[in-house]
Amino acid sequence: MTDISTYSLEELNALAEKIREKILTTVSRNGGHLSSTMGAVDLIVAMHRVFDVRKDPFIFDVSHQAYAHKLLTDRWEQFDTLRQFGGLSGYTKPSESPYDYYVAGHSSTSISLAVGAAKAIALKGEERIPVAFIGDGSMSAGMVYEALNELGDRKYPVVIILNDNEMSIAKPIGAISKLLSQTMAGSFYQKFKGKVEKVLDHFPEGATYMAKRFEESFKLITPGILFEEMGIEYIGPVDGHDIESLIETMEVAKAFGKPVIIHAQTTKGKGYEIAEGTKEHWHGVSAFDLKTGESAKKSGPKAATAIFSETLLAMAEEDEKVVGVTAAMPSGTGMSAAIEKYPERFWDVAIAEQHAVTSMGPLAKEGFKPFCTIYSTFLQRGYDQVIHDICLMDLGVAFALDRAGIVGEDGETHQGAFDISYLRAIPNMTLLAPYNETTMKLAMAFAKAYDRPCAFRYPRGAFMADDCPAPAFELGRSELLQEGDTDILFIGYGNGVGRAQKTAEILALQHLRQAQVPKAQGTADKPSTGSGTKVAILDLRFVKPLDEEMLTMLARKYKKWFIFSDSAKQGGVGSAILEFLSQSGMQDIALTSFEYDDAFITHGNTKLVEESLGLLPEQIAQTIGEKLKIKK
Amino acid sequence: MTDISTYSLEELNALAEKIREKILTTVSRNGGHLSSTMGAVDLIVAMHRVFDVRKDPFIFDVSHQAYAHKLLTDRWEQFDTLRQFGGLSGYTKPSESPYDYYVAGHSSTSISLAVGAAKAIALKGEERIPVAFIGDGSMSAGMVYEALNELGDRKYPVVIILNDNEMSIAKPIGAISKLLSQTMAGSFYQKFKGKVEKVLDHFPEGATYMAKRFEESFKLITPGILFEEMGIEYIGPVDGHDIESLIETMEVAKAFGKPVIIHAQTTKGKGYEIAEGTKEHWHGVSAFDLKTGESAKKSGPKAATAIFSETLLAMAEEDEKVVGVTAAMPSGTGMSAAIEKYPERFWDVAIAEQHAVTSMGPLAKEGFKPFCTIYSTFLQRGYDQVIHDICLMDLGVAFALDRAGIVGEDGETHQGAFDISYLRAIPNMTLLAPYNETTMKLAMAFAKAYDRPCAFRYPRGAFMADDCPAPAFELGRSELLQEGDTDILFIGYGNGVGRAQKTAEILALQHLRQAQVPKAQGTADKPSTGSGTKVAILDLRFVKPLDEEMLTMLARKYKKWFIFSDSAKQGGVGSAILEFLSQSGMQDIALTSFEYDDAFITHGNTKLVEESLGLLPEQIAQTIGEKLKIKK
Repeated sequence: MTDISTYSLEELNALAEKIREKILTTVSRNGGHLSSTMGAVDLIVAMHRVFDVRKDPFIFDVSHQAYAHKLLTDRWEQFDTLRQFGGLSGYTKPSESPYDYYVAGHSSTSISLAVGAAKAIALKGEERIPVAFIGDGSMSAGMVYEALNELGDRKYPVVIILNDNEMSIAKPIGAISKLLSQTMAGSFYQKFKGKVEKVLDHFPEGATYMAKRFEESFKLITPGILFEEMGIEYIGPVDGHDIESLIETMEVAKAFGKPVIIHAQTTKGKGYEIAEGTKEHWHGVSAFDLKTGESAKKSGPKAATAIFSETLLAMAEEDEKVVGVTAAMPSGTGMSAAIEKYPERFWDVAIAEQHAVTSMGPLAKEGFKPFCTIYSTFLQRGYDQVIHDICLMDLGVAFALDRAGIVGEDGETHQGAFDISYLRAIPNMTLLAPYNETTMKLAMAFAKAYDRPCAFRYPRGAFMADDCPAPAFELGRSELLQEGDTDILFIGYGNGVGRAQKTAEILALQHLRQAQVPKAQGTADKPSTGSGTKVAILDLRFVKPLDEEMLTMLARKYKKWFIFSDSAKQGGVGSAILEFLSQSGMQDIALTSFEYDDAFITHGNTKLVEESLGLLPEQIAQTIGEKLKIKK
Repeated sequence: MTDISTYSLEELNALAEKIREKILTTVSRNGGHLSSTMGAVDLIVAMHRVFDVRKDPFIFDVSHQAYAHKLLTDRWEQFDTLRQFGGLSGYTKPSESPYDYYVAGHSSTSISLAVGAAKAIALKGEERIPVAFIGDGSMSAGMVYEALNELGDRKYPVVIILNDNEMSIAKPIGAISKLLSQTMAGSFYQKFKGKVEKVLDHFPEGATYMAKRFEESFKLITPGILFEEMGIEYIGPVDGHDIESLIETMEVAKAFGKPVIIHAQTTKGKGYEIAEGTKEHWHGVSAFDLKTGESAKKSGPKAATAIFSETLLAMAEEDEKVVGVTAAMPSGTGMSAAIEKYPERFWDVAIAEQHAVTSMGPLAKEGFKPFCTIYSTFLQRGYDQVIHDICLMDLGVAFALDRAGIVGEDGETHQGAFDISYLRAIPNMTLLAPYNETTMKLAMAFAKAYDRPCAFRYPRGAFMADDCPAPAFELGRSELLQEGDTDILFIGYGNGVGRAQKTAEILALQHLRQAQVPKAQGTADKPSTGSGTKVAILDLRFVKPLDEEMLTMLARKYKKWFIFSDSAKQGGVGSAILEFLSQSGMQDIALTSFEYDDAFITHGNTKLVEESLGLLPEQIAQTIGEKLKIKK
């Protein structure tokens, strides 16, 4: 580990510069988070100088700001593998390094974690100080407030470093954000303060008390008041790029013995001129040209998010009852277009999934059609609200779940694996999924017209399946895409339909090839798909409610069912179908599900990750072939 | 509906008195929430006078404070049925009355709902004002802060009535609570303010500006500063029992045209001397004697919560590594005993489930054994935190899920139905359940020793099963309680084991009776349990991981499996077993699950509610009898 305890100020500054260069070149090659992590370098260097990472818990919020920390803790050489399959995670990860205290890919957990760590340290009687490093964008989530509420009351010695780059992921939103950007009005107050001090001489008795009151009246005009009212000491704002004064400030904070927040103002993208500024674009980027800042244009089919974005805008144009909400992900979810054109009907409520969900309930009740657009993994934050504030009221809120399935480089904290399992148990909920561009539009048309709660899921990036014409969605109706001439049925849900189709193509091709092999040789180990060559393919469309009529009919002809869905196996699509088969007494169906096994799934290129799970169509085809061979 | 628009002040006060009497007599008979709702009567009378419930959304937080609202809106006669099966809900419920804008049984949703309603009203261009009525205890949850953050920014005209009785459910906790209880220090400030005004004459220029600063310096010492800093106007504190001044204040707030919070201080239990004060006991009560305040002593078996409470305390005494957290439910969860004896190791963090969960992670990491004790229904609030902050880190936090299953009179917002479905999908999670006193202790002993995440669930009230000796819990090991001489296997999970046992007893008895009936008569419609008289009974113990070895063995002998668990069917215990049977290719098992169907479950006496679901042992026995008859 880089020992910087003896570094001179010049050496520290040079180190920070070197770290910035390393981050910049790596991210320009691999893609990754850029602007916030570049802005955080000086703060992290100072943090490593003042605190001891070998004993003090360094707790990074959302932790994509922590690249400098990785570089300072034995990961310089490996850094080229950042966010790549088998390489370094884009987030802190204890299994990667003993200096990563905690994992964090979802925001706003750091202060709760610091409180927990402080409790443990107090019980052990140790001299360690938890340091929470949090961006201003993370300050909007309710968790932060819950944690501050306990921290301000119990007064554990915790140092909070607030990296304020007015970033959030998009633009800063909300009252807190405005409060943070206030600054001391400067000279007038200095003059005023001087005069007041003279005035105080007129009050011999109670002067100390009044001095304190006056001091408080000055605090009022700093952003610190909110924290101080909650019982947290406040220092700031300080320049987040002045390593010398940062070290001094942190030394003071370290010695406080009670909770203190250091409010540091930083420039996002610091050190890379093209990225410096407030552009959301530079928050997280794919590989780009260092000189021009341009990303390689991706060609290929349209991303599901883009289809959502266009369709939502078109719906909003056509019907003024269409409204929507995003929790700090306007670009990520594609809601930005609608927000820009109809700012009075589409809201970015900052990182605040609970509020996002619940606030859409009354809009549905009042006759509007809310699209609540939250990534599959982040809706976990609003789970109780989906149950208690939407489904119990049986209101027509449509949940658009982007990033369902493997999300690629963000990895295990972000995989959209659990939504079917956690939503399917909720009464009054309807779950559906499209599998290509046309069905995405049709699913959205269904959701728009439907007056009860529903959720539709779609992948990050493009659908696997090509576009094709398709009939409209009807509640609980599936679509048989292909009849088969074997006893095999592929059931696809959402992006799983494309996976099923590609698998079926491979199987058919193998069958064809093997049919061409001279019989005498081929028969013995031929992976059979039954007597024929074609498997049936069902686009399930609704996992809740199921198309019981269709499934009952198919159960007569097809006895081997294979489930394709980009979701967790436990309580997932296969499980829903098993429940139905069991209730209907149809015991003669053999079901195999190609959903995710019971483990957290690592980061990396989506195809590589899926390969590691054995879920590429060619792998599934092989698995099926072997399974059928054994059964024969 | 009671039209109080022409009532004199005397009449309004008399009405409030009458309402209090009605609430008191009803709750003394039926049980229910008492102290906060008694304290809220005057506020609600004033609210109904100033705002128009026919158009303004009245949004009650946790809504058990809203009994006066129910009495003012056509429910006086029905009020005797409060919280009884088929009767009025203890919470607001739109299906019960058009004057109930929204359902609320979980806390801290009202401001989000008011923001949503305000958005809808603005889009419709209507003149209606959402009024959120919230207790101080609800102010600790993050949702409130998320909603205030947007409200303070967008400035919708919303009136928030903060009913401050320093209640929470237990004692007030946290920095916010302390802030609220500050009051103007009175005479000193008045004198000081007068002098300051004189001093201001010394500053001809800038005097107005400075006057404003001084005004702010005074606000500093009121509780309002927090809200004002967030962009919400603040009025208060006002006397929450002075109807005249409440009406005046609300009229002012109504005319503001921007968000405003009225901070009203009330006395809990107002009007019933025995309950006035801060006693948690009077928050929610069972039937009691009006004169003495004494509840009828309940006899009968020990409640699961009491066993938890004693066992936890014993563990804490024995091992200083045992720690725990509750989110504002110290008595409800039985953690109060441990908190009282070891306040440095057991924490009540107020209504803040997200923080409660996450803050236990570092304690586990640092070598402690945290018991995170949250009702099944409330853990929904911390779902993402269980996944992201505990299970992804694979830390040994034990979740103690009280109130799993039907919870009785609190009803549909509180039923503990979904925990298995939403927790089972999480990798690294272990799920177990006890079914009587001894197994509860053993389950807790397992949880204490286990160094990975686990959750054990137990019912409100007593277990159905009698106590008996039992072997220790081993990871993923079930316990065969009874071999059978038929092909029928009962699989019980948690309280379901008792239900299975009682059902088996009834079936055996029926069989015995029918065997005694002369053969000629009896044979035709005899509900057979196979050739023998005894069904096998398995105590599943772990629904994750399943005891695959035992299930495989039992599958050879028993072909008709019946599942007993007080949980939702979708993704529940039956579903877990179906997944296993399917994966293992054991298709010859007919499985029937007696879990909850896919609907929200109403309130009322637990036995009556279970009867309405057909889940009493005698009903299940009949269902099974019929099922077997048909099959034969």
